[in-house]
Amino acid sequence: MAQLRAFESAQKKGHEIPEIVCYEKQDDWGGQWNFTWRNGTDKYGEPVHSSMYRNLWSNGPKEGLEFAEYSFDEHFGRPISSYPPREALWDYIDGRVRKSDVKKYVKFAHAVRWVDFDETTSTFTVHVQNLRSGETESEEFDHVIVASGHFTFPNVPDFQGMDTFPGQIIHAHEFRGAESLADKDVLLIGASYSAEDIGTQAYKMGARTVTFSYRSAPMGYDWPEGMEEQPLVEKFDGATAHFSNGLKRKFDAVVLCTGYIHHYPFLPSDLALNSPNNLYPDNLYRGVVWEKNNQMFYLGAQDQWFTFNMFDAQAWYVRDLILGERELPAKEEQRKNIDAWLERFDTLRNVDEQVDFQADYVRDLIQETDYPMFDLDTVAEIFKRWVGTKREDILNYRDVTYTSVITGTKAAQHHTPWMLELDDSLERYLSTPEPDEVRDIFEGREPVKRR
Amino acid sequence: MAQLRAFESAQKKGHEIPEIVCYEKQDDWGGQWNFTWRNGTDKYGEPVHSSMYRNLWSNGPKEGLEFAEYSFDEHFGRPISSYPPREALWDYIDGRVRKSDVKKYVKFAHAVRWVDFDETTSTFTVHVQNLRSGETESEEFDHVIVASGHFTFPNVPDFQGMDTFPGQIIHAHEFRGAESLADKDVLLIGASYSAEDIGTQAYKMGARTVTFSYRSAPMGYDWPEGMEEQPLVEKFDGATAHFSNGLKRKFDAVVLCTGYIHHYPFLPSDLALNSPNNLYPDNLYRGVVWEKNNQMFYLGAQDQWFTFNMFDAQAWYVRDLILGERELPAKEEQRKNIDAWLERFDTLRNVDEQVDFQADYVRDLIQETDYPMFDLDTVAEIFKRWVGTKREDILNYRDVTYTSVITGTKAAQHHTPWMLELDDSLERYLSTPEPDEVRDIFEGREPVKRR
Repeated sequence: MAQLRAFESAQKKGHEIPEIVCYEKQDDWGGQWNFTWRNGTDKYGEPVHSSMYRNLWSNGPKEGLEFAEYSFDEHFGRPISSYPPREALWDYIDGRVRKSDVKKYVKFAHAVRWVDFDETTSTFTVHVQNLRSGETESEEFDHVIVASGHFTFPNVPDFQGMDTFPGQIIHAHEFRGAESLADKDVLLIGASYSAEDIGTQAYKMGARTVTFSYRSAPMGYDWPEGMEEQPLVEKFDGATAHFSNGLKRKFDAVVLCTGYIHHYPFLPSDLALNSPNNLYPDNLYRGVVWEKNNQMFYLGAQDQWFTFNMFDAQAWYVRDLILGERELPAKEEQRKNIDAWLERFDTLRNVDEQVDFQADYVRDLIQETDYPMFDLDTVAEIFKRWVGTKREDILNYRDVTYTSVITGTKAAQHHTPWMLELDDSLERYLSTPEPDEVRDIFEGREPVKRR
Repeated sequence: MAQLRAFESAQKKGHEIPEIVCYEKQDDWGGQWNFTWRNGTDKYGEPVHSSMYRNLWSNGPKEGLEFAEYSFDEHFGRPISSYPPREALWDYIDGRVRKSDVKKYVKFAHAVRWVDFDETTSTFTVHVQNLRSGETESEEFDHVIVASGHFTFPNVPDFQGMDTFPGQIIHAHEFRGAESLADKDVLLIGASYSAEDIGTQAYKMGARTVTFSYRSAPMGYDWPEGMEEQPLVEKFDGATAHFSNGLKRKFDAVVLCTGYIHHYPFLPSDLALNSPNNLYPDNLYRGVVWEKNNQMFYLGAQDQWFTFNMFDAQAWYVRDLILGERELPAKEEQRKNIDAWLERFDTLRNVDEQVDFQADYVRDLIQETDYPMFDLDTVAEIFKRWVGTKREDILNYRDVTYTSVITGTKAAQHHTPWMLELDDSLERYLSTPEPDEVRDIFEGREPVKRR
């Protein structure tokens, strides 16, 4: 969506743009934010793209991801809270492009099967299947932009005894809602965003106990009673997990919060990014240009503090390369530039330095294009404060509000504290409940009806 | 495995065989029978192949699927029961080939990504990825045999309100065991093998209630109290399913037993079989030769009464075509032959006629090859009796025994009735429990420890 918007923006300023085809395997755009109850494979037999769950609310403040050229105020017409639910965020990213004409470039329900590059003609052949008709076709392109993301294919480790664990085992990718974890003893393996948030969701929905298992270090939050961290599971024996500290405990369900892998089944290995999830994958000049073939680009291949606005910065830069507005340096210069970033990346010792690193990366890109520069340092401060508020109160950090660097608007306080809000719908989010209702929720007398 | 064994058999009889490469995306062979606790995607990010669950026992008598050239007696050295558990069947199909030299032909953990056919050279280019190293490579072949099956990619319908159903929704493909359904109200949507068997597993493992929902007709078995059939679900409202007869009922979990689709993401559409699941997919001469390109073959693409021995018959026939031992008729003759079978297929009115149809199909193939002919009519009778025993007692039909047409051996009675047997391991299956233990199980005093 960022790339389509980037080209449209250039066109509106009078540039000629090339022929564009966007292949999207889902029936609508929005990527991760295009929620589905399905897991495993979709209605066409394709792996489900989205890892999103019904009850997800943004886990980072919206002031960190706001588009510099399309504010939350412009979209919603009034201040909203800093941590909107899933539907509100989808509405925002969809809103930017739905009134424009870019949907015409997208072939929905089209799965890219295989990409070939012909050295002699310097063109890509893209083999693609129309999932509705089943028909395959092959098209030639001068450039390929991979914008399929890297939080879709789960990293799924094996633990001895999992084949006879009697309860449910799923990866976070398959998790769709925590309601069914009520009254359960739940084990979450992992110590990053998925574990922290799915564990909190389980607690919110009434899990009996929530146990996290970490490999290297605990998250270390101030967990309430009933939630705790333990070191790595060594094996399962029936329903009982054995931890490396000798603890044995029975569980009803296991959620593997063990991250995602870069996986591009439609690409030959000389075009496929192969990297751990980190802030600066190797072999990408300025984080987007495939070093081994400069006609190929990746958007959003980094681990992410910055998201939507970073994707914009990348898309605007890639657009200008394709339009010929910017020139790439020679291969050796590209390598030097990558190495310089990798060198700094290796020195990062803490969250603050990571955030500043990515802020500088985004700044470096925006400076090359006409994407509106915004106050990256203040956004970096917002991310750092966010991390601090989680340390202070992991269950309630979503009730904190921030001020937009794009519009100067202070976020609204949501009408209901997040831990008490059981209705995640956009309708409820934008509604104005009677003061009595909110007071009742606070006092636990009349909880909001679960959807 | 059948195809490799077929070539090996010819080689042992003095035939020269061509260069063979078998690409298998799993780490071991056995296909569906290669059980994994994983669901969704595997450790390489590939869709999980197997739809098998931990507690699965053969749902048809083994006397219907016995290899004509490798009997159960030869493998186990003594009579076993007619409905062995999963591990015993895997051991049997593995046993036939593990002492041979055919494993050398298999490249495990290799996923076929894309197949191209070049009309000018009449060769296939197969693009394949080594999942362990990530490297892709392209190899040329004169023939391609698709033996990846068609019970892997689930058919997943949508029902209004599923996006807010609070319990677990899975397709049978993702089902791995019924223990977690104990004390639950379970809804199974579907009226074929998956529904019948997963429902029975759920009952066996202590589900509170089991409700089946059918689209066109109920299975009509004599269900015990707590199991019943209802017409199609119209929608969900929270945890409540609304059925087309007006019934409303709350459920804790939904298992979609809605079948599988033919799905070949590695094939261009002019090579990909596109068929409903039935006994005679169109465009396959003798059920195996791709009509539109006679260098391409499909094994096991039919719906199946006959399985292992039918795959053998197909593999032996395909082998002889590739070796030049048999010649294909002209295209018009192929079409006539397909049409004749399709015409008869259209007349089939009941189970008996379906079984006889497939028996005749297998006979037609075996007659063309040196695969040992066996008493297909008696096997057909076994299938018909099987259907009858299910009508009589759906919970206990697995306690019935049959006589092998290959060896004349009468199957053994398993030491423990299936409904009381909670240990599905090969070790337990082949063990000889003390008479006291079995009596105790019968009397419910000391149930076998769940694994």
